[in-house]
Amino acid sequence: MSIFNVGLKKIVDDSYDIEIGFGLESKLISDIQNGLVGKIKKFAVITDSIVKPLYADNILCMLKNAGYNADIFVFDAGETSKTRTTKELLEDAMLEKGYRRDCCIIAVGGGVVTDLAGFLAGTYGRGVPFINYATTLLAAADASIGGKTAVDTPLATNLIGIFNQPEKVYIDIAAWKTLPPKQIYSGLAETIKHACIASGELFNYLDNHMNEILNIDKNACEYIANENCRIKYEVVMKDERESGLREILNLGHTVGRAIETVSDYKLLHGEAVAIGLVAEVKLAHKLGYVTSEQHDDVIALLNKACLPTQIPDYIDREALVKKLYTDKKVRDGQLRFVIQKGIGDVVEFEDGVFAVKISEDTAREIIMNM
Amino acid sequence: MSIFNVGLKKIVDDSYDIEIGFGLESKLISDIQNGLVGKIKKFAVITDSIVKPLYADNILCMLKNAGYNADIFVFDAGETSKTRTTKELLEDAMLEKGYRRDCCIIAVGGGVVTDLAGFLAGTYGRGVPFINYATTLLAAADASIGGKTAVDTPLATNLIGIFNQPEKVYIDIAAWKTLPPKQIYSGLAETIKHACIASGELFNYLDNHMNEILNIDKNACEYIANENCRIKYEVVMKDERESGLREILNLGHTVGRAIETVSDYKLLHGEAVAIGLVAEVKLAHKLGYVTSEQHDDVIALLNKACLPTQIPDYIDREALVKKLYTDKKVRDGQLRFVIQKGIGDVVEFEDGVFAVKISEDTAREIIMNM
Repeated sequence: MSIFNVGLKKIVDDSYDIEIGFGLESKLISDIQNGLVGKIKKFAVITDSIVKPLYADNILCMLKNAGYNADIFVFDAGETSKTRTTKELLEDAMLEKGYRRDCCIIAVGGGVVTDLAGFLAGTYGRGVPFINYATTLLAAADASIGGKTAVDTPLATNLIGIFNQPEKVYIDIAAWKTLPPKQIYSGLAETIKHACIASGELFNYLDNHMNEILNIDKNACEYIANENCRIKYEVVMKDERESGLREILNLGHTVGRAIETVSDYKLLHGEAVAIGLVAEVKLAHKLGYVTSEQHDDVIALLNKACLPTQIPDYIDREALVKKLYTDKKVRDGQLRFVIQKGIGDVVEFEDGVFAVKISEDTAREIIMNM
Repeated sequence: MSIFNVGLKKIVDDSYDIEIGFGLESKLISDIQNGLVGKIKKFAVITDSIVKPLYADNILCMLKNAGYNADIFVFDAGETSKTRTTKELLEDAMLEKGYRRDCCIIAVGGGVVTDLAGFLAGTYGRGVPFINYATTLLAAADASIGGKTAVDTPLATNLIGIFNQPEKVYIDIAAWKTLPPKQIYSGLAETIKHACIASGELFNYLDNHMNEILNIDKNACEYIANENCRIKYEVVMKDERESGLREILNLGHTVGRAIETVSDYKLLHGEAVAIGLVAEVKLAHKLGYVTSEQHDDVIALLNKACLPTQIPDYIDREALVKKLYTDKKVRDGQLRFVIQKGIGDVVEFEDGVFAVKISEDTAREIIMNM
């Protein structure tokens, strides 16, 4: 009998930049020319059917004009495409076109595209570099920091994936102008979540500037894009592997993700999160961490952002309660929730513990009354 | 316009132990009881249909007797199961049984099981810990060090996967006694590869003790298991992300993997590698790095290990040449090969470069004459 120790301690630097601005296509190309991804000359642009004609075709064309090999790989827009099957089809298409390990993936689109393409990049040839060119507010709020990539399965959302950091993220606010209003509302749900967990100031800003934001005013949008990045960055920086603090980013998501699945993705992610935020602020109120006024303020701000604040009638409440148990945060079969403390803070239950076990009855009571 | 830097520099320790011995089931259980994977109480045993009754059922039973929650997840034995579809079916079965992020995966079996389960573990809930209980010589030689996990696709082998390090590896030599002889031969191909690239001494040992090894003599097998680990460890340690040196482990694999695919997996991995080693020693001989005698010695040792040394007649040579281009090592559309230097060494073409571009004509000439 013998024992070998395989020593693999090392320093890893996954740092990257997020650039926020209006119309960043040329900057993307010049960054690549200036060595953003080393000597790579082959680029797979991954996008969805909506974003393709709006932005991705243009980026593809600019890459080719700059002398790079590039192809575009497209899937049907929508959360229902965020599956292992779509990933497989894209992989096969890339293999067919001769893509190997000497390529870089550029994800152009919203959160579904960046989640899917980031996961694909991480497993393609055991990992090729990728760049996120985020065209939606939701991607700016949610998908640009943290390295979380994943796909959905019939039984749970975002459960199959990896942590994978991009080479760079571009947040193109100009692209928000072409978003359907519902997508803007949906992205605002994550922004409101960030305000609830970390910044009363951002909460007030949203309350006072909602119309400008909904009209894609440049300054207002740049401000919220910045704030989204700053808040998420501070949380993720302190806890990259999601052991404790990072759980606070799941505010609204325990119920939200379950609703999203039970609605069969009729609800957009942000819409589901908005309803989840309401459910979880009700829970915080019940536990005494949020006043009635603060509870009402959260619901009012969500309404101002044209987001739903009640569980739609077509949702089976019991199915929803059952679905809560598929959440990644479930431990030892117990439901666990992040709890908002007033507006702009969360409850730390013990050192480094930001979620608390909640009985099924308590969860059911709140869901049944929404 | 603004730029955020997301700073993610950190120290990562992926170190783990490899234990080599006879009948290590009890050791596995006691290691878990002693905190090998922290406080985890839920174990998914992943295995194939052949290994299940031989070893995995027993390990499952021992886990349950020790008070853990455990289930077994089985797929059909064979390289053709190493697919994205099998991974998906296993994931769905685990989700169905309520497995979330608070579990550990134990892979019990050969290289196909450890490759597939290691990949699955890395993407399940964005990564859960896994343990490899290797029951084959091939797994000992190939899959226990390096963290390479992957599945095959119709267009290429091992191209979809990740680097993922286990918590511990057990190499149970007692299990080799139940292997079909062909599996022992197949595993020896990787051992012979290790000898060719790094140890003339191991090469001579294999030459002098082949009968003991084929009869699973305890001492001889422990020696080669150790040597396999040592050689692979030294190479991998120096180059964990496969940038340069690690390429030498691909000796025989550029042609081998292509043959494996073109044969539609009628050839076992090791059989295909054996033929690949012959092709690549012929190439080394042609380039003047291997003498005629050394060339003959390699072929003789492969024969002694009952491995094939010629391309089977049913293989379409032109399809094989074409398939070489799907190799992960192809760069800028050019074939690249590791070149053996005598026995026990490889050619370093320039600083840190252990592969050389080979023209399609040269590759074709060798393949046509085998």
